[in-house]
Amino acid sequence: MNDAQHISFMEEALIEAKLASDKGEVPIGAIIVHDGKIIARAHNHTEQDQDPLFHAEILAIHEASSYLGLRRLNNCTMYVTLEPCIMCAGAIVLARIPELYIACKDPKTGAVSSLYELLSDTRLNHQCSIHYGLLEEDSSILLKTFFRQLRNGDIKKTVSSRFEHE
Amino acid sequence: MNDAQHISFMEEALIEAKLASDKGEVPIGAIIVHDGKIIARAHNHTEQDQDPLFHAEILAIHEASSYLGLRRLNNCTMYVTLEPCIMCAGAIVLARIPELYIACKDPKTGAVSSLYELLSDTRLNHQCSIHYGLLEEDSSILLKTFFRQLRNGDIKKTVSSRFEHE
Repeated sequence: MNDAQHISFMEEALIEAKLASDKGEVPIGAIIVHDGKIIARAHNHTEQDQDPLFHAEILAIHEASSYLGLRRLNNCTMYVTLEPCIMCAGAIVLARIPELYIACKDPKTGAVSSLYELLSDTRLNHQCSIHYGLLEEDSSILLKTFFRQLRNGDIKKTVSSRFEHE
Repeated sequence: MNDAQHISFMEEALIEAKLASDKGEVPIGAIIVHDGKIIARAHNHTEQDQDPLFHAEILAIHEASSYLGLRRLNNCTMYVTLEPCIMCAGAIVLARIPELYIACKDPKTGAVSSLYELLSDTRLNHQCSIHYGLLEEDSSILLKTFFRQLRNGDIKKTVSSRFEHE
């Protein structure tokens, strides 16, 4: 894939992040690509579903595994708008995703290079190729705007009783 | 709770682990207790569902959150038959589970004390109280027997096309 294609996929991840923001969720989106085609797309959904597991990456991996009927996503690439947390980095290892594009770092809970380097740990039986910086500023502005609006009370978190992803 | 009650809950986690074994899944079980009552029970289901996320702990957290309608399991205790991996340790932090009983350690992928000490990291906004050794030998024997049978070809991994947990 060329740079324009990678940017185009990260744009799709950002579209997902914006969908999260519109629902009062922290704006994080993820895309999984297989054979040049998006096979899974998801955004953060923890508030709506009141489920701590429903991060964009987890929902996208679940969707991709379901689509392919495989628990190993060896030939897939993930695009995510924020550096994955510990849980999501662990899930990426378990899913054997070989390549990951991250828009911006998360110095507080990021587990790819900020707090830990879980995807480069040679004691585990999988390491992942990591690329930073694609649409970094767009993702960063989206997150900063969201948290400013939340602090100002311009965004109300909404909780649905329905498990959309169950 | 007294020791007998903790043992009784770990016995339930072991029952779940045995259910996994019967299906050709690595025998790991987890229980979540709230107000002295089991509100979630699950076993490893990655092969059956071909989903890398379907570890016992993940399924149990999802079930408990769904039952309580909450994404934070602040008043819950988890019992798990094997030391959680990176993904599951991350999920335990996100779910804010305050207390964890682990039957036996996993020197290869354990992320609570073996490879990492993710539940004691003071940079994160949650730490978990950890208790090791409850029914340690029973869980260890169950795992060793499973892997021996798998090596000998006495266990066949089966794959269902159905997402039981979806």
